[in-house]
Amino acid sequence: MKKSPSSEKSTIKSHPSLSPQDYTEIKETVRYSETDRLGIAHNKNYFEWFELGRTEFVRSKGIPYAEIEALGFYLVVAEACCRYKRPLRYDESFFIRTGLSEMTSKKTVFAYELVTGDGQHLIASGYTVHISTDKDGKVTPLPPEIVEKIRG
Amino acid sequence: MKKSPSSEKSTIKSHPSLSPQDYTEIKETVRYSETDRLGIAHNKNYFEWFELGRTEFVRSKGIPYAEIEALGFYLVVAEACCRYKRPLRYDESFFIRTGLSEMTSKKTVFAYELVTGDGQHLIASGYTVHISTDKDGKVTPLPPEIVEKIRG
Amino acid sequence: MKKSPSSEKSTIKSHPSLSPQDYTEIKETVRYSETDRLGIAHNKNYFEWFELGRTEFVRSKGIPYAEIEALGFYLVVAEACCRYKRPLRYDESFFIRTGLSEMTSKKTVFAYELVTGDGQHLIASGYTVHISTDKDGKVTPLPPEIVEKIRG
Amino acid sequence: MKKSPSSEKSTIKSHPSLSPQDYTEIKETVRYSETDRLGIAHNKNYFEWFELGRTEFVRSKGIPYAEIEALGFYLVVAEACCRYKRPLRYDESFFIRTGLSEMTSKKTVFAYELVTGDGQHLIASGYTVHISTDKDGKVTPLPPEIVEKIRG
Repeated sequence: MKKSPSSEKSTIKSHPSLSPQDYTEIKETVRYSETDRLGIAHNKNYFEWFELGRTEFVRSKGIPYAEIEALGFYLVVAEACCRYKRPLRYDESFFIRTGLSEMTSKKTVFAYELVTGDGQHLIASGYTVHISTDKDGKVTPLPPEIVEKIRG
Repeated sequence: MKKSPSSEKSTIKSHPSLSPQDYTEIKETVRYSETDRLGIAHNKNYFEWFELGRTEFVRSKGIPYAEIEALGFYLVVAEACCRYKRPLRYDESFFIRTGLSEMTSKKTVFAYELVTGDGQHLIASGYTVHISTDKDGKVTPLPPEIVEKIRG
Repeated sequence: MKKSPSSEKSTIKSHPSLSPQDYTEIKETVRYSETDRLGIAHNKNYFEWFELGRTEFVRSKGIPYAEIEALGFYLVVAEACCRYKRPLRYDESFFIRTGLSEMTSKKTVFAYELVTGDGQHLIASGYTVHISTDKDGKVTPLPPEIVEKIRG
Repeated sequence: MKKSPSSEKSTIKSHPSLSPQDYTEIKETVRYSETDRLGIAHNKNYFEWFELGRTEFVRSKGIPYAEIEALGFYLVVAEACCRYKRPLRYDESFFIRTGLSEMTSKKTVFAYELVTGDGQHLIASGYTVHISTDKDGKVTPLPPEIVEKIRG
């Protein structure tokens, strides 16, 4: 136990939610290796599922994420949050819904919802904030063509 | 692209930060398998590191997490957030600092800071909110002895 | 550097290969989080993919793996091997082919091949050996109904 | 179910074992996220632990793996095998022992043993075969200085 040298100020922050107009949906199934000894999917996997969701979202806009990187731009994760409502079990199928909450040349915010296979229940919701950088991590605005494509 | 049936209300939320009085610290090193093709530690690993941090925190209070589970109580993750400030690279060592932001019999909030090996720079900060349940996921208050021990 | 107390004898071992008669096939795509800083899928992921393959194999035989566990039997991994022939890159799609090499009430051997999305090139091959146990890890023969179903 | 187009020949293969003369040892502890719903460490994690073991082995020889890569050489995994003898549970500590089975400018074979925290029981043993390549995956012999250093 030690005295904390730093004490980062808490900030007021609203959790982005899915845009009602426009989202993509993919189906996934819980892998055995994604469960933990409590018998449910471990919390870290949801951030991997969010990534699958936004990969599908940008692909649906006609610009696969690999292509964005091939052009020299990287949507580095600056913040990631998830709220867990219901557990997921081994071999359970669910939907990952992904929408765009905010997009400028420098900042992109995706919002996510995981829902049960019957579409009836919310499993988790969350968001990720991304900063656009070059390969070396230097903040670099996205060109307007990419921003417009993803904004759709 | 579909219309969103649900539209969860955003809520105002302050990010908990490390209590300046009392935190534990452990050293970790980035594994090769934890890096991604951008050459930095992937965002999902931070949530695994937070887990190592709170494991150490409750152990330091004299009650290993495995013991809490052996007594029939589970600190299920209800929310997890991370803000990424600086990238971590392969074989880089860093500290995980963990403090307790809030603790009642039903809800526990841990706050985390990852700092560089020289203690000079903040790598990431975050928090996790936990609900106390029994083995089947039913909300179950922690007994006072456990609450008092962890509150220290 | 220390003297090794034990020195397990090496044994002669043939790598099982896919039965030409009978295998299942599923398509997977490399996740960003599955790549490492060399830009290719990390070697540990192949064992997760093998697991997806055998899950599909037993499901195709009419007995989902979750059902086998619900009956009180566990196909615990006793050995797992993989030979890597070609790297896999982010967002690359590939097939996981799974066949049964051997199956008795106590021992099951699955063989796997990963092939490129065009079906032309071998990416990796491997096998896993499983021992049948009860929930506590005690070796327990599978009932004939399960063995016959999986043998197909 | 389909006919298999390829049928890779099985080959006779001896599992390398730890050299009794010379190995490194590190202590690790099973993370919660490394367990699965059977309550034991999932089989894929052992390959991550092997990687930690060989990282320590080459570091002990005075040449950190990151330095080998900085020189333009990559020890790409060509084969990885593990035999599982005893399960590992959450928060259990164990040792990873790593030795060198074979080393030429083109091929390196590491052997591993995981043993219980009291040093009394074998948990798992395995090996990995590595081919030396350049950044683009082209087979490239290691320079004699590196080979000699690692051979010790």
